[in-house]
Amino acid sequence: MGMTDPIADMLTRLRNANSVLHEKVEIPGSNIKKAIADVLKEEGFIKDYTFTQDNKQGVLTIKLKYGPDSEQVITGLKRVSRPGLRAYVKKDQLPRVLGGLGIAIISTSKGIMSDKKARSTGVGGEVLAYVW
Amino acid sequence: MGMTDPIADMLTRLRNANSVLHEKVEIPGSNIKKAIADVLKEEGFIKDYTFTQDNKQGVLTIKLKYGPDSEQVITGLKRVSRPGLRAYVKKDQLPRVLGGLGIAIISTSKGIMSDKKARSTGVGGEVLAYVW
Repeated sequence: MGMTDPIADMLTRLRNANSVLHEKVEIPGSNIKKAIADVLKEEGFIKDYTFTQDNKQGVLTIKLKYGPDSEQVITGLKRVSRPGLRAYVKKDQLPRVLGGLGIAIISTSKGIMSDKKARSTGVGGEVLAYVW
Repeated sequence: MGMTDPIADMLTRLRNANSVLHEKVEIPGSNIKKAIADVLKEEGFIKDYTFTQDNKQGVLTIKLKYGPDSEQVITGLKRVSRPGLRAYVKKDQLPRVLGGLGIAIISTSKGIMSDKKARSTGVGGEVLAYVW
């Protein structure tokens, strides 16, 4: 799976680490995955991330976020577009995730961003994932 | 809250009972709430429900559903339309909840039903809640 769909692999690693309340999770790096981590940080779903490129691929380290009573801040992650079935939306078709409770991560011509930012920027793109 | 928005009250009671893995939860009854329970049963989110009307209002008893390792089958419930801000959709605007992972409960001219059933029936209506 890591080979055929690196983003699905990233979501799976996040989901697993989050479900057992790990403080952080390491993921084989890429610029797309770094950009996704950046959206997750900006939208408050993770504490922080670092991207170190001391070997060829680099490693993305994500610090997960929990509430005061160890409640998960991320309650779900779902891959939407897939290598076998790409999902594209126009700027007026940008999805709302649970009425704004979650976000869609969109790959646009102006970078990877949340559905909210894509809406305010006025761009559509590929719907990479939902996070809520 | 129970007085001003009985459906929000129902969702809160379900959410609370579900989070502490209760086997069942009792809710002051009504025909709308019974119809919502019926959708939840049909869509596999609850085990069963009964509606007994031995007093004026009646009691709706919902048997919650869990997985083999006590995983919640319901992971989230969200009120959408509210007494102060009703949310109506046309048949071609019916929401998809997490790309089909969840359901929207729609109050239509043909009864209360899931977004999927509303789509196949070809009716819009009031978006009562999301369940996922």
